[in-house]
Amino acid sequence: MNSFKGNDIISTELMTKQEIEKILDVAASMNEILKMKTKAKLLEDKILAVMFFQTSTRTRLSFESAMLRLGGSVLGFADAKVSRAAGPRAETLEDTVRTVDKYCDAIVIRHPESGAARKAADYSRVPVLNGGDGQNQHPSQGLLDALTIWSEKGTLDGLTVGIVGDMKETRGMHSLMHCLAKFNLKLLLAGPKEISPEPAMIRFLEDSACSYEVTEDVEGSIPAMDVLYTTRLNKEGADSDEAYMELLHRYPRIDLNLLKNAKKDCIVMHDLPRTDELGLQILPEVDDTPHGKYFDEVEYGVAVRMAMLALVLGGVE
Amino acid sequence: MNSFKGNDIISTELMTKQEIEKILDVAASMNEILKMKTKAKLLEDKILAVMFFQTSTRTRLSFESAMLRLGGSVLGFADAKVSRAAGPRAETLEDTVRTVDKYCDAIVIRHPESGAARKAADYSRVPVLNGGDGQNQHPSQGLLDALTIWSEKGTLDGLTVGIVGDMKETRGMHSLMHCLAKFNLKLLLAGPKEISPEPAMIRFLEDSACSYEVTEDVEGSIPAMDVLYTTRLNKEGADSDEAYMELLHRYPRIDLNLLKNAKKDCIVMHDLPRTDELGLQILPEVDDTPHGKYFDEVEYGVAVRMAMLALVLGGVE
Amino acid sequence: MNSFKGNDIISTELMTKQEIEKILDVAASMNEILKMKTKAKLLEDKILAVMFFQTSTRTRLSFESAMLRLGGSVLGFADAKVSRAAGPRAETLEDTVRTVDKYCDAIVIRHPESGAARKAADYSRVPVLNGGDGQNQHPSQGLLDALTIWSEKGTLDGLTVGIVGDMKETRGMHSLMHCLAKFNLKLLLAGPKEISPEPAMIRFLEDSACSYEVTEDVEGSIPAMDVLYTTRLNKEGADSDEAYMELLHRYPRIDLNLLKNAKKDCIVMHDLPRTDELGLQILPEVDDTPHGKYFDEVEYGVAVRMAMLALVLGGVE
Repeated sequence: MNSFKGNDIISTELMTKQEIEKILDVAASMNEILKMKTKAKLLEDKILAVMFFQTSTRTRLSFESAMLRLGGSVLGFADAKVSRAAGPRAETLEDTVRTVDKYCDAIVIRHPESGAARKAADYSRVPVLNGGDGQNQHPSQGLLDALTIWSEKGTLDGLTVGIVGDMKETRGMHSLMHCLAKFNLKLLLAGPKEISPEPAMIRFLEDSACSYEVTEDVEGSIPAMDVLYTTRLNKEGADSDEAYMELLHRYPRIDLNLLKNAKKDCIVMHDLPRTDELGLQILPEVDDTPHGKYFDEVEYGVAVRMAMLALVLGGVE
Repeated sequence: MNSFKGNDIISTELMTKQEIEKILDVAASMNEILKMKTKAKLLEDKILAVMFFQTSTRTRLSFESAMLRLGGSVLGFADAKVSRAAGPRAETLEDTVRTVDKYCDAIVIRHPESGAARKAADYSRVPVLNGGDGQNQHPSQGLLDALTIWSEKGTLDGLTVGIVGDMKETRGMHSLMHCLAKFNLKLLLAGPKEISPEPAMIRFLEDSACSYEVTEDVEGSIPAMDVLYTTRLNKEGADSDEAYMELLHRYPRIDLNLLKNAKKDCIVMHDLPRTDELGLQILPEVDDTPHGKYFDEVEYGVAVRMAMLALVLGGVE
Repeated sequence: MNSFKGNDIISTELMTKQEIEKILDVAASMNEILKMKTKAKLLEDKILAVMFFQTSTRTRLSFESAMLRLGGSVLGFADAKVSRAAGPRAETLEDTVRTVDKYCDAIVIRHPESGAARKAADYSRVPVLNGGDGQNQHPSQGLLDALTIWSEKGTLDGLTVGIVGDMKETRGMHSLMHCLAKFNLKLLLAGPKEISPEPAMIRFLEDSACSYEVTEDVEGSIPAMDVLYTTRLNKEGADSDEAYMELLHRYPRIDLNLLKNAKKDCIVMHDLPRTDELGLQILPEVDDTPHGKYFDEVEYGVAVRMAMLALVLGGVE
């Protein structure tokens, strides 16, 4: 296993199982710090730059909270429009990165284009963390999902993890599957066939440690699941508004009726937000049942990002 | 009196006189810290989240300055557009709150809808401070106004406080009247009848410790005033642009001529900004007279917000 | 020489040579702190307010990074739209300044109007640093350019500094020329005559310590240059889009062919971004040659701003 110190975190795809376990392990101890409601002064002299070319509530604020909880500072932009990075004479990403890396000790970037985080890392002299690039990868999301399962279930091995919904176009889903596939578990991939995994993902799963099954029968798959993970239907991936709306009407919505045959300790997860044109994709009636873990995920997200920051910046070994 | 620790501050309406006095008391000592131009490290491990669904210069920066002066940190958004909280698939306020409360130790929220701060508090696991909700309440504004009067006059009791202008639609005015009405003073409510207080406010004043008088004669009321408090005409409350402009032309503008019969030590206050379609609502000729206290209010505002933050976060008893 | 403590920095025009040398001297020691990748806790209790009425990546983030590296905190706005300073009832600059100065210990302002920084300083009770006002001045840019030359060349005296391009409309160029003109060097002002310096600048150069030459022959001037400084053509200064595009086609673009007769140790500088409607104004083939110093300038920029902040806030003598 390579040390994380000084390195980028762009994708969970090429991470080893040991590397993932290392992050989860450090994140679990960060979670303890969070529970004590205090700061760990591990990164007191460090500055994180947030370069968000797409807006975000969760990812940006979660990384910022993580950095502040570690005693560090944050600067950057939350929106391409408040920088020189937009408009007819917009600076290239390469040049923006070679500028911002002089202001900070690490960068977290979100960008509408797949591959942008990799490109940024190639030009940056400080570690780059991918906060979501196009429909490609969103590693901190995948890792926080893994941490949630690991913490709530005590293990990843031996579980049946249901992935319900858009497995084709959603970067968080890609990162989660690339992450979980390193473990000895079963992925139950359930949803309309239009949004089942791409051939490249299927090949990845074939070559991985996990077993998997693809099915269109969401309801029939529920009873086997230890975890039911879902996400919104990706709108950018649709051919047209009509095609999107048509598929949305067939898209799984999670309510107590759907969960009536679920295991009692099956946890329901979502990367949030859960709002689409039809309302909430998980009904509020699920929120306060023992199934509902989607708001707990948010807290695990801070812990995972604390671990990522502390590791790449050398705050922990 | 309840302790503030762990509680929300949503409205001055239901606050007791003792609670208001407690905040003013702590704020007065915070003012001493500000004068020493140093930081008090009372909230060093704490994070404040600013959730501003409406833009603001004063309220947001004032809360941020207060938090930084107490040694704490700040994250959040200054504008609904830089979060997932805007757009066709906008997250619900409930879900946004249940997310952001994982990133911080307290939330200050500004929102265009009346009641939004109360709703946020119902869902948040950290204390929520109302930074202005629709035309409803703006408690930190009312409290900073009260602190200004108390500090400049040495007391609230026995004063005649003139409230000149829009008492109907302005949240800051509501919070101020709800605050002052707990004290043994006289409110002189002067302005066009279209924007005199709503029946609910009149009933509140009837049941309160203060006395009050409603009049349309602004000029004739001036000589009795120890304090002249004014604000801009609220545009959102008008039926039409025409109705707004017509009323604006009759709306009190404060100049030296209007103040010629004022008490020498009558202080003129304004929640700022003072600019409307007709220019400045208080003329610059008043700025440097002993009457003009509206820019001093800004500094009292930092002290009040330091007190609010320190109290709800347990930095002071 | 006056002390900087408590004073504004609005323009390099009226600065003495001693004052410029003082800033460069302090900046050089700040550069050492930056190289140690640590913080200097010189401004631990201080708050910097950024008031950016025009967006910026470099200037805002560089000042923020400088303040954080000195242990201080930052608040403010990155865009006029997220404050009360925009819109039909926009607050006046005077009132905004008299508000924001209560939240902070120093202000850095960027504004589209020439003279805005001077006006802000007249109303502020805390030091104001000009982060660029209209087409007027951008002193921190001029100073960081001077620091880059001084650090890379070991001296300013005796050099031939080529200024290639828009000397008429560009605030950074004005600040640089006002800065360098105090030293015993030669300015070689090369470019299309439409954008050669204004008469006021020529008079300033006449009265200064430097010598200068104005020429339209860019290529012929290159061999004499120890420094080649260029910038984008200012679009706001053009009479029409057509005039701008016509001039842009004649505007100097820096490539290896143009540099073939340059001195081996001639350094190429640019205030960035370098992108215009024709692509990159300095071609990437120059980036990794010994000539290319434009990304190094970014780091010198943090050091200069640390020096400016530490000096006006009394963190260094």
